[in-house]
Amino acid sequence: MYVIMVYDVNVARVQKVLKTGRKYLTWVQNSVFEGELTEAQFARLQRALQKIIDPEEDSILFYLLRTTAYLERQTLGVIKNEPTQFL
Amino acid sequence: MYVIMVYDVNVARVQKVLKTGRKYLTWVQNSVFEGELTEAQFARLQRALQKIIDPEEDSILFYLLRTTAYLERQTLGVIKNEPTQFL
Repeated sequence: MYVIMVYDVNVARVQKVLKTGRKYLTWVQNSVFEGELTEAQFARLQRALQKIIDPEEDSILFYLLRTTAYLERQTLGVIKNEPTQFL
Repeated sequence: MYVIMVYDVNVARVQKVLKTGRKYLTWVQNSVFEGELTEAQFARLQRALQKIIDPEEDSILFYLLRTTAYLERQTLGVIKNEPTQFL
């Protein structure tokens, strides 16, 4: 499945979230990662993040797409990074 | 179409981007909006944002979905707001 991950975490934990995100996904923009993951990889990513974040303060959103056939990405302004998995 | 908007703009322009985002979409999390828009509404939103952002410094990402049938949202940590349009 295709995963879009958007994180909103305290600055004290941003570096750890970035490091973990990069292990599984491609950095797209400040606070956004994307990539194709298996269910098992997604479960591992979630477990790794759960160990890092403070669940009462931080928030990480995942958009899970079974197909990217109906997905289009557009950018206004600076294109900071462009994953190659779709488009 | 369903629109997910993630913005990364200089703090000097965040309030204007927030105000414009809220006119068209639902705030979901720090720097994330979502909602159902027509093509015409999306074009207006883009034009409004283009007037606000500095295209050499700011970045706004749009994920456009022709259907939310293959989309699922999951959250780790704090659920800051939950749009009602899907799930």
